[in-house]
Amino acid sequence: MKHGIRQLFIPGPTNVPDRVRRAMNVPMEDQRSPDLPDLTLGLFRDLKRAFRNDGGRVFMFPSSGTGSWEAAIQNTLAPGDRVLMARFGQFSHLWVEMAQRLGLDVTAIDVEWGKGVPLDAYEQAIGADHGHEIRAVFVTHNETATGVTSDIAGVRKLLDAHSHPALLFVDGVSSIASIDFRQDEWGVDLAVAGSQKGFMLPAGLSFLSVSEKALAASRDNRPKLPRSYFLFADQIAMNDQGYFPYTPPTQFFHGLRASLDMLFEEGLDNVFARHHRLAEGIRRGVRGLGLDLVAAGPEWYSDTVSAIFVPEGVDANQVLKIAYERYATSFGGGLARLNGRVFRIGHLGDLNEVMCLGALAAAEISLADAGAKITPGAGVAAAHDWYRKANAGADARLSNG
Amino acid sequence: MKHGIRQLFIPGPTNVPDRVRRAMNVPMEDQRSPDLPDLTLGLFRDLKRAFRNDGGRVFMFPSSGTGSWEAAIQNTLAPGDRVLMARFGQFSHLWVEMAQRLGLDVTAIDVEWGKGVPLDAYEQAIGADHGHEIRAVFVTHNETATGVTSDIAGVRKLLDAHSHPALLFVDGVSSIASIDFRQDEWGVDLAVAGSQKGFMLPAGLSFLSVSEKALAASRDNRPKLPRSYFLFADQIAMNDQGYFPYTPPTQFFHGLRASLDMLFEEGLDNVFARHHRLAEGIRRGVRGLGLDLVAAGPEWYSDTVSAIFVPEGVDANQVLKIAYERYATSFGGGLARLNGRVFRIGHLGDLNEVMCLGALAAAEISLADAGAKITPGAGVAAAHDWYRKANAGADARLSNG
Amino acid sequence: MKHGIRQLFIPGPTNVPDRVRRAMNVPMEDQRSPDLPDLTLGLFRDLKRAFRNDGGRVFMFPSSGTGSWEAAIQNTLAPGDRVLMARFGQFSHLWVEMAQRLGLDVTAIDVEWGKGVPLDAYEQAIGADHGHEIRAVFVTHNETATGVTSDIAGVRKLLDAHSHPALLFVDGVSSIASIDFRQDEWGVDLAVAGSQKGFMLPAGLSFLSVSEKALAASRDNRPKLPRSYFLFADQIAMNDQGYFPYTPPTQFFHGLRASLDMLFEEGLDNVFARHHRLAEGIRRGVRGLGLDLVAAGPEWYSDTVSAIFVPEGVDANQVLKIAYERYATSFGGGLARLNGRVFRIGHLGDLNEVMCLGALAAAEISLADAGAKITPGAGVAAAHDWYRKANAGADARLSNG
Amino acid sequence: MKHGIRQLFIPGPTNVPDRVRRAMNVPMEDQRSPDLPDLTLGLFRDLKRAFRNDGGRVFMFPSSGTGSWEAAIQNTLAPGDRVLMARFGQFSHLWVEMAQRLGLDVTAIDVEWGKGVPLDAYEQAIGADHGHEIRAVFVTHNETATGVTSDIAGVRKLLDAHSHPALLFVDGVSSIASIDFRQDEWGVDLAVAGSQKGFMLPAGLSFLSVSEKALAASRDNRPKLPRSYFLFADQIAMNDQGYFPYTPPTQFFHGLRASLDMLFEEGLDNVFARHHRLAEGIRRGVRGLGLDLVAAGPEWYSDTVSAIFVPEGVDANQVLKIAYERYATSFGGGLARLNGRVFRIGHLGDLNEVMCLGALAAAEISLADAGAKITPGAGVAAAHDWYRKANAGADARLSNG
Repeated sequence: MKHGIRQLFIPGPTNVPDRVRRAMNVPMEDQRSPDLPDLTLGLFRDLKRAFRNDGGRVFMFPSSGTGSWEAAIQNTLAPGDRVLMARFGQFSHLWVEMAQRLGLDVTAIDVEWGKGVPLDAYEQAIGADHGHEIRAVFVTHNETATGVTSDIAGVRKLLDAHSHPALLFVDGVSSIASIDFRQDEWGVDLAVAGSQKGFMLPAGLSFLSVSEKALAASRDNRPKLPRSYFLFADQIAMNDQGYFPYTPPTQFFHGLRASLDMLFEEGLDNVFARHHRLAEGIRRGVRGLGLDLVAAGPEWYSDTVSAIFVPEGVDANQVLKIAYERYATSFGGGLARLNGRVFRIGHLGDLNEVMCLGALAAAEISLADAGAKITPGAGVAAAHDWYRKANAGADARLSNG
Repeated sequence: MKHGIRQLFIPGPTNVPDRVRRAMNVPMEDQRSPDLPDLTLGLFRDLKRAFRNDGGRVFMFPSSGTGSWEAAIQNTLAPGDRVLMARFGQFSHLWVEMAQRLGLDVTAIDVEWGKGVPLDAYEQAIGADHGHEIRAVFVTHNETATGVTSDIAGVRKLLDAHSHPALLFVDGVSSIASIDFRQDEWGVDLAVAGSQKGFMLPAGLSFLSVSEKALAASRDNRPKLPRSYFLFADQIAMNDQGYFPYTPPTQFFHGLRASLDMLFEEGLDNVFARHHRLAEGIRRGVRGLGLDLVAAGPEWYSDTVSAIFVPEGVDANQVLKIAYERYATSFGGGLARLNGRVFRIGHLGDLNEVMCLGALAAAEISLADAGAKITPGAGVAAAHDWYRKANAGADARLSNG
Repeated sequence: MKHGIRQLFIPGPTNVPDRVRRAMNVPMEDQRSPDLPDLTLGLFRDLKRAFRNDGGRVFMFPSSGTGSWEAAIQNTLAPGDRVLMARFGQFSHLWVEMAQRLGLDVTAIDVEWGKGVPLDAYEQAIGADHGHEIRAVFVTHNETATGVTSDIAGVRKLLDAHSHPALLFVDGVSSIASIDFRQDEWGVDLAVAGSQKGFMLPAGLSFLSVSEKALAASRDNRPKLPRSYFLFADQIAMNDQGYFPYTPPTQFFHGLRASLDMLFEEGLDNVFARHHRLAEGIRRGVRGLGLDLVAAGPEWYSDTVSAIFVPEGVDANQVLKIAYERYATSFGGGLARLNGRVFRIGHLGDLNEVMCLGALAAAEISLADAGAKITPGAGVAAAHDWYRKANAGADARLSNG
Repeated sequence: MKHGIRQLFIPGPTNVPDRVRRAMNVPMEDQRSPDLPDLTLGLFRDLKRAFRNDGGRVFMFPSSGTGSWEAAIQNTLAPGDRVLMARFGQFSHLWVEMAQRLGLDVTAIDVEWGKGVPLDAYEQAIGADHGHEIRAVFVTHNETATGVTSDIAGVRKLLDAHSHPALLFVDGVSSIASIDFRQDEWGVDLAVAGSQKGFMLPAGLSFLSVSEKALAASRDNRPKLPRSYFLFADQIAMNDQGYFPYTPPTQFFHGLRASLDMLFEEGLDNVFARHHRLAEGIRRGVRGLGLDLVAAGPEWYSDTVSAIFVPEGVDANQVLKIAYERYATSFGGGLARLNGRVFRIGHLGDLNEVMCLGALAAAEISLADAGAKITPGAGVAAAHDWYRKANAGADARLSNG
């Protein structure tokens, strides 16, 4: 299908709003120009607002989110350091793998895919660690592979309950700026995000938001992993003046200015509420089609991505292929053990109700073409009912307006 | 609704493909540069292909389509000339009004809105005109206000049957490059199109495709309407060398190069077939919702726009307002006597199946919010069935591929 | 020369600032949407500021500036109306030709190319017209072909001195928004401008700013030229609500918003001062190369374009060709009788000192390659001295800053 | 200075051609789509052509060039490995610093700034290393801080003369795609480049071109530096199928396609010749102004950047500030020990003669404003003479054409 607008319903990269695309389409400029700090210092300040990180600071690395995963580890930990992690999807799996490659002593708790961070098991490990050998606790806030959101506040609570000094690392790549996230309140020490999700930018820039405690850890006397590209100290020395230790992708800064403006104009809480409202419509549509989510229960539902089991006998990859080639729609595939059994609808970023109805319509017709017995229109209808109800307040305003 | 991609389902301007937008985003250039003809001469040649006009030539005026309506008249007719026209919608009405303002002696046949060119009445008028006083016969190929397509070949047939020498003027603004149009075969003398419909460009450029006979008429000794901006002779003198008598909007030429390439890469006949396939899905969706078209019967159905009656008791303008404000979708309104009773879905240009499903989903939910009793999903489901069937050939290829 | 940035030094189209290009790169939108007037009503208001036209109104036509020439005539004059015009360059010549084609009774005074509006001859004609048969007086404010600016206030003065009621038409295509223009103060009734000059937009939109008196003339009982596309009444009826009688090129409106913002942020008087400062540098550079302007004296110097005689024995067209092909620079050519003897440097729009130095450097090297005996660097040096002096105030500020 | 086009004459980021900007302005797409390899596999192939690396492969990392510096080290070396480096400018200095931070045992030879790689000292160190303890030899091909190009072939020759197996690392960030570089012929094992220099893209992507020998080293049994983000093995596994181990910045790939097309359309050798021709004009202009280069002699001249001493008593930073604020021109500053004494003109990427004349004009006027006693126009004149002579062949063709 070469005609018309393609629908992008993967959990990132997300649709870049026209306003952001326009803002990024700038001539190159001198990365050492006297004007640059006018732009960049405001970005650093407003990124902190987006992470709800009052005390610490946010780094911007020219890298994918994976780079910030590594930056977080390299700057605060040393080979052999013991860390507590959980594995409940492809991305939490990959973070464990990185920690192992970098030489950490990883205690990785395996959890059924469809659930999130295992508070009980974490509590047990933390409670047993009287010597405070666990240097860091890692949590994937939103597991993109399964559409599962974890309880970060709960992890903080158990650390506090045990007065455990471990650093709290959070992968918020597919949650931050879309799902409620409160770095200060939850005592998160290192939070990773990427440009290409809730920040509605192309891929290529990652954000690492760090607490004062993490900064202190990066400065203390303990030896750390060898590092240079991602070294905090170099960034800090330059960032404080609005500059960077190596050539930064300035076009992203203009785009980020626009995307932060959009987020704050809407209001972060409204952004989160919109993501919830849209996601719930998708979930009701999925149920309307008689399909099941990978997420094991409502407490795990992700407001940014839904992983959906196809009916028995249907090949999820065929659904993806049909959606892509025949209906101009990109859905996410089932990763690793979910391959062939699951397709994913990303519903985050610059999105509205009618786009979600379009996603469901594309899912319906692609499933049908792939041999699933579904009722045409049933998904759209279920979402339609929800969106009308969820917008009832708006209705009232409009009819009086 | 400020978030997400807006759906544009008006009968023009249509969605400009990203490829065309990119092509148009050029620095300004010298309109007298030695390189310009490399671009423009190819455009003139390929526009003739798009109109299926081998013998004559195509003018490009910096104007809306209305400008080419006027250019057609000014260059070939004189005040007091008798012309035969028909009025069956707002745009055919406006063309009559223009002809009257310009001083032509207009015989305007009024036709029930929902039908198109009245072949019988035209035959009668032509057959009675033994003195060949009728200088020109006008037909609106696709009446954008009612979603009605007229039979141009039929008009040619009756002119030929009476060996009548009148010039044949066709308003193809919302048909050409979307609906089958054959200037040579149908003996059309002056065919008007605009950039912002099937040519998938922004508004601002109009095309006037003329036959050899129209060119001869523009050159003959009869006095014509006073004219200068739209004067054929000035255009011809410069166009033949790839230039223009006044500053042309060169950025459009780059966009037009891209849009013509897209049309020919797909193949004009495939473009027409796609428009038919997509339009038929919309019509089935409309029927699935229990709604009626303005078009009085299948012989009048337009493959570029559908005008749809809302149920009794529903205000069509409220539907439009809700769709626009709450569901990020622009539909066309009911014009003139159809105001408040009709909304229109434009389905032309850079469009695909899943966009049409999205249009129907937006129509369903907006109608429901406006108080219509419709079955949620019923429109989407009906279109879904048609698109699956219509694509069955593609299905077969895919499963074997 | 395919590499690098091309220099555009023609008197329009001018360089479109990146900010304006970005602003124009928008998806299509509904030209009847409820939001459009938020944009367009502000444009109408601010265009009046740009013309310094408090009382009347400004029309925006999808056309080149030539279209607004015609609109001005069609809406206020009738075939046979007597008008007073002057011809002192290719563009004033073409306006005379248009007036004749449209059937006006033109008294065209021929003036030596290099001078502008002949106040004496106008005074004589006006003074002799006791019966007020002259319906309109036309003046080309800035003759783009010769680089000559005329005294509009002077024409107003002589009309007033004779209490002559003729309408005053001004072609301000290459002056307005670049050179001081005061519609109200000078009693200009119809002022024409185009998007692609001082307004820093691509070609495709023209502006016609009219006084109350011109509006009254368009409404009076006298028959006018046949007209429909450019009819004031249709525009007024729709413009007052922020809409248009036919599909407008909405992308231009976004660009115009940006360009008007740029003009007002700088301040119109500063814009004019900048144009004067830059133009004077070009003129000094030209003199530094030992070349002469077509403009017959400083009272005629244009601050938007300089027409320059090449030395005897040099072919100006060869200079243009070399500049274009070898030095990536577009200059304007000598038009009509100046062909081959003159090249033109356009110096208007989004321009600064160093761009003007670049233009002179390109002129120097192209002239040398074409066989002119010039001193390399002499033009640049003369402009350098002027710009340094002209910026001395800025110097002082900088060293203290 | 807020008006007009800004001149960017820093040694990167360079001007992104409009063609590349357009190509990059794309909607986001699925980084796992079936179509992506159509694009990416061609890029991998053509990047090898740009590096003249037949045997090995090129990695694309979402990072600045500094990231690829680190990737080269992490994948082939271990903490404690002995390496030979030279320090003759800020960037060679920073690479040494990185190697030390990463735990290598660095032998860093300090060389007078203004000269490049010290072949004698290298020969001595290599010759003395009978035990082949030196694992790698590093060379900065083009030292951006001083405008000095080093003799890579010479380093290869001495390694071969001593049959020394050390890996050869080259920093080609500001040379590759602008200055002759021959990875295979010169036996370079790891060559680093960035998107924002000769490749004419924005910053944000780095290229690491590796030989078969380097790949083998990355796979051998020796332990390496801890690494994950930059791990070769992950890249290889995915790149071979046209994909990436983490979300890649796909918009860059579209831009890279365009920039590689431009490089090959011109022809790499022509690109190099153009850079030399343009650079020589800048150097002659500098001499024409009576100024000296930092580069100690012609054998060290860089064709991508010139570092220029300001006259005694002049503050180079004031020159930069004036150029930036008053003349819309960005030059590079003097780094580290050169601060205040030097300004730099970057002359690489999408550049032509007349842009270089503009750079010299801006340098002249900024120097004069900063108090330097220079002859206005003298720099432009000297470059003018050179460009005319260098283009004499083109002249001949044009006059016969």
